[in-house]
Amino acid sequence: MKAIRVHSYGQPPRLDEVPEPRVTGPNDVIVRIGGAGLCRTDLHIIDGWLADFIPADLPLVLGHENAGWVSAAGPAVEHVAVGDPVICHPNLTCGVCGACRAGDDMRCAAGPNLPGATGAGGMAELFKTNARATIRLPAGAEPAEVAALADGGLSAYHAIRKAVPALGAGSSAVAVGVGGLGHIGVQCLKAMTPAEIITVDTSEDALKLALDCGADHVVTADGRHPQQVRDLTGSGADAVFDFVGEDDTISDSVAMLRPGGTYYLVGYGGTVTLPTIPLVLGEISIVASLIGTSSDLAGLVALAAQGKIKLRSSSYPLEAAGDAIEDLRRGRIRGRAILTPG
Amino acid sequence: MKAIRVHSYGQPPRLDEVPEPRVTGPNDVIVRIGGAGLCRTDLHIIDGWLADFIPADLPLVLGHENAGWVSAAGPAVEHVAVGDPVICHPNLTCGVCGACRAGDDMRCAAGPNLPGATGAGGMAELFKTNARATIRLPAGAEPAEVAALADGGLSAYHAIRKAVPALGAGSSAVAVGVGGLGHIGVQCLKAMTPAEIITVDTSEDALKLALDCGADHVVTADGRHPQQVRDLTGSGADAVFDFVGEDDTISDSVAMLRPGGTYYLVGYGGTVTLPTIPLVLGEISIVASLIGTSSDLAGLVALAAQGKIKLRSSSYPLEAAGDAIEDLRRGRIRGRAILTPG
Amino acid sequence: MKAIRVHSYGQPPRLDEVPEPRVTGPNDVIVRIGGAGLCRTDLHIIDGWLADFIPADLPLVLGHENAGWVSAAGPAVEHVAVGDPVICHPNLTCGVCGACRAGDDMRCAAGPNLPGATGAGGMAELFKTNARATIRLPAGAEPAEVAALADGGLSAYHAIRKAVPALGAGSSAVAVGVGGLGHIGVQCLKAMTPAEIITVDTSEDALKLALDCGADHVVTADGRHPQQVRDLTGSGADAVFDFVGEDDTISDSVAMLRPGGTYYLVGYGGTVTLPTIPLVLGEISIVASLIGTSSDLAGLVALAAQGKIKLRSSSYPLEAAGDAIEDLRRGRIRGRAILTPG
Amino acid sequence: MKAIRVHSYGQPPRLDEVPEPRVTGPNDVIVRIGGAGLCRTDLHIIDGWLADFIPADLPLVLGHENAGWVSAAGPAVEHVAVGDPVICHPNLTCGVCGACRAGDDMRCAAGPNLPGATGAGGMAELFKTNARATIRLPAGAEPAEVAALADGGLSAYHAIRKAVPALGAGSSAVAVGVGGLGHIGVQCLKAMTPAEIITVDTSEDALKLALDCGADHVVTADGRHPQQVRDLTGSGADAVFDFVGEDDTISDSVAMLRPGGTYYLVGYGGTVTLPTIPLVLGEISIVASLIGTSSDLAGLVALAAQGKIKLRSSSYPLEAAGDAIEDLRRGRIRGRAILTPG
Repeated sequence: MKAIRVHSYGQPPRLDEVPEPRVTGPNDVIVRIGGAGLCRTDLHIIDGWLADFIPADLPLVLGHENAGWVSAAGPAVEHVAVGDPVICHPNLTCGVCGACRAGDDMRCAAGPNLPGATGAGGMAELFKTNARATIRLPAGAEPAEVAALADGGLSAYHAIRKAVPALGAGSSAVAVGVGGLGHIGVQCLKAMTPAEIITVDTSEDALKLALDCGADHVVTADGRHPQQVRDLTGSGADAVFDFVGEDDTISDSVAMLRPGGTYYLVGYGGTVTLPTIPLVLGEISIVASLIGTSSDLAGLVALAAQGKIKLRSSSYPLEAAGDAIEDLRRGRIRGRAILTPG
Repeated sequence: MKAIRVHSYGQPPRLDEVPEPRVTGPNDVIVRIGGAGLCRTDLHIIDGWLADFIPADLPLVLGHENAGWVSAAGPAVEHVAVGDPVICHPNLTCGVCGACRAGDDMRCAAGPNLPGATGAGGMAELFKTNARATIRLPAGAEPAEVAALADGGLSAYHAIRKAVPALGAGSSAVAVGVGGLGHIGVQCLKAMTPAEIITVDTSEDALKLALDCGADHVVTADGRHPQQVRDLTGSGADAVFDFVGEDDTISDSVAMLRPGGTYYLVGYGGTVTLPTIPLVLGEISIVASLIGTSSDLAGLVALAAQGKIKLRSSSYPLEAAGDAIEDLRRGRIRGRAILTPG
Repeated sequence: MKAIRVHSYGQPPRLDEVPEPRVTGPNDVIVRIGGAGLCRTDLHIIDGWLADFIPADLPLVLGHENAGWVSAAGPAVEHVAVGDPVICHPNLTCGVCGACRAGDDMRCAAGPNLPGATGAGGMAELFKTNARATIRLPAGAEPAEVAALADGGLSAYHAIRKAVPALGAGSSAVAVGVGGLGHIGVQCLKAMTPAEIITVDTSEDALKLALDCGADHVVTADGRHPQQVRDLTGSGADAVFDFVGEDDTISDSVAMLRPGGTYYLVGYGGTVTLPTIPLVLGEISIVASLIGTSSDLAGLVALAAQGKIKLRSSSYPLEAAGDAIEDLRRGRIRGRAILTPG
Repeated sequence: MKAIRVHSYGQPPRLDEVPEPRVTGPNDVIVRIGGAGLCRTDLHIIDGWLADFIPADLPLVLGHENAGWVSAAGPAVEHVAVGDPVICHPNLTCGVCGACRAGDDMRCAAGPNLPGATGAGGMAELFKTNARATIRLPAGAEPAEVAALADGGLSAYHAIRKAVPALGAGSSAVAVGVGGLGHIGVQCLKAMTPAEIITVDTSEDALKLALDCGADHVVTADGRHPQQVRDLTGSGADAVFDFVGEDDTISDSVAMLRPGGTYYLVGYGGTVTLPTIPLVLGEISIVASLIGTSSDLAGLVALAAQGKIKLRSSSYPLEAAGDAIEDLRRGRIRGRAILTPG
């Protein structure tokens, strides 16, 4: 079958012919891919940034945002049947460690086991995952339309779910960066909280998308934006979600918070550099967020089924993965790029 | 000034001429009433039902849902000024007991101190309250339009806020009874949670109001309604809010819950009678709810200011209090009756 | 092998010779029983009380509190090995439904699947369970000493864990009934909260045990006990855990609560009968509790390993199950009866 | 009366004769000081470090950890009477802003209003505070013995209370620095959680004190300590409380955490410098903590009254404030220095 593989860090991935995955264990699930999302983490993998943190053997099939239809399953798999539309959680978990028992999938003791990062991913025709990572979509769902919920959407949702207790009536929340993650984040904030929603981006197009997604206010990131957010909120925002995570967005985001507020670090790349005196006097929290749980993914699928979340995406055939990667690098994609085989 | 007073239980209250209240303590606030809500609790007071639980000296000026403009204030009052539009929390609290320090206003150690129930209320031209019970409305707000938030709205909001952690994406919530409380409850559920909202009432008019308020489904209470709710939700609702609280609505509401679900008792009157075996096997919770905190009231005012909550009300001049009471008894009021002096 | 089986409701169970269980599925685990606890639920099963709620085919091997050593396991079982000491969660769960993904084991969509109630239990030499229900004990642990944690201990722990947020410094908690569950409950309260601990029982022996377990105060249940608890606590307890659940203990327990307090229903049998007016004015919560999650069981095992929880138990050979049942019925067992094969 | 005042930053404070404070407002409370704690924040004030963040007019009477007996009170003060032993919350709050209503005293909209930092403190014979800042001690309490709860104890308690939900059975917590705050922190952890408690300090004396206070393990801070903590805990601690807050303790503390763990920043002085990639992959939270609420202080007083918290302190007469300051600078004080007037 066809698959997009990284052969060496820093080089564009290639379209290869590779063997089809097969069921070998009782909990295996083979998914015929309907769509595989492409995200900034793929660029970090291609560029080798994550090689020290999440080692993988090359060549590596990319693709950690996968949805499709069950094509085969091991004998212990009972909750999905061949032909069911499904979406795949990005971590393959054991189900019996302390973290799995508590619903904390990203901390499974057997992992990280991240197809598309530590093993073969879903930018291919078929994809091998396991029972616990497989979540059924509503009958008739179109996998390519929701694939990007599996990681980008999930990361936004997970951070926002953590913030729900702090985002009651009269609160305000800021989304910094309205791209693949941020545009879902704004919709999650709208669906899950009564917070006043402010979005910040450098791009006017992104801010237009933010308004479409339900933002109450948009602020152009031009240097004066932390002050503008403070003016809009009175004393600062209750929560700021940073979907970018560069040095500048970190310090600017923290400067938007009210005393007692929380900064959610979702995008990454930069360094947090904050003197303790203002942190303590402001009683600020910094909460890093990593993808999300399989319950989160099920919640997000429910929001999408109710029409409360809609993904903006651009479709590329699997063969055009190189174009998609180039478009992502150059900031030419609104919403999310989705690779669709055949 | 004019005031509506109960002279003896079971008798209609009368329009009396009474002395105006005056500032006597440093934290006193005198409010010129813009509107005073009339609710089922007023009927319970008139009928003497609450006499054993919350004793009061007769004659008693009714009115525990009060909003207006500050007309005078004691020397220690700094957060509002004469002329400010305000809404009044129904309990006068001390601010220094353990409950007040924790924000748990209804359990103030000095109370209950409930104007309109234990002392002179706001169905009058002027009303005496205290600093902590006075919450400023946005400039230009029309007190009569929001008066009913002070108790009915607050009671709905408070119960729903307790349920927020259980009402995540993919959850379902039921509002039983769409009257003065219930129609605000539906709007709070819509604003504060992503839950699928089902409403139950015997009246088609009430169910129409529910749809206007944002309900996703309406179910006529005809005996088959618990089963219909279970069918709509798959395995039962996560939360049921009972804004009626009669024997029948209690057992029917509990029958609508999924295992692990919670029944919120907001309206009252009947008796909870539930055998323990199904309660334990279903791991059901029963949570009684009493009015709300002053933070809750501030939150509700914020939702109203954002347009997320709109009260349906019928206005009556103070002199027509008797008609309003009669209309409420006969179920002829959609939303809330508001008494407005001169 | 030998096993204790119920042949018809209302009749004493019998010691039978039955076939040994065998691994048939990839996630099966066979445990050589070290100890199986006997509890009041077994009496309810024998007497047929639960037949309408949790149907089972007779004859039924009793035993839902099981611990021992792994004797065989299916090919997908990786977290325990033959010979490992283990304790068994009472519900066999699927691991992939919404409830399992969220860590809510008692609500597994595939269940209830309760060995000893809906299928063959552990009052036998060998016992068949599954991977997710199997929790490893520390090396060298003596299974018979901890078997009763699997249901009685778990039920106490689960209810108390729910109450932790309400049991901060300066709070008070009451345990009603200091038997198999209650004596573990007192120790959990001591280990997990700073609450002042009050215990109530009719038996002086039980109250002595309560003091040994760390209770701060003991109160004899003689009719004046609700008032005594209110006197000890000032305005009533923050939480009352009812490990009995009969009509009397229910009303007495609720009468011990402070306004805003919570009644935890753990034991069962009676009927909750409470008028709504005092429930609402007191803003009382009634929280039924059903066994616990597998994370709870792991937490409890950790407390036992640290010496913070010690089970009081009386050991009976499997052949003497009839005597143990009789002793339990007559209230002659302090702590928990444990049946130990061979 | 005598008072210890800072006249210019960087210079030792002086013992001055100053006018006695008097009741001027209805909520004023005058306290005859029994003891005033001296803490590292006093050094920061003397040295002028906080001058940019919390401006004050010099000369300034030091002393923000105050306890004593009510000597006079304004007419609106009802919850304490002349002669009552009391402890004083460090922030003077309004009681009617949103933060006060929610019990979030440190964020009072009227503040910060911190006697001893922004106005006259309690290193004096008499001290002026207000009703809401005054918390009654149990009859017969010795104010000098508990004065240090008012800020140091409160800061430790507040951070630990935030962590209670994460510190269940089987968890582990680390206290870094066992001085004035840390030794109370260890006792709070012991009283309020079942966590395994590990303490880290450079001083053997401090580690001895930690064991006296209930620590389960002590680790000398010698460079290998982050690894030692990871070895003791398996995969890292659930929570690390940094009572020091210098550059080294920050990075070392974060290195002790398990994935998903939380670092509590209580002491301050250094700069947080952490690259985002490991923060996100480890899903680490950084929670700064500022003093605590008045409910926290009441909780702490309850723990002390139950004997669950004991302060280690060294008493100095007010006249010897200079010696106490010098001893604190040189690390010669075990526990807390308390200044006691005449």
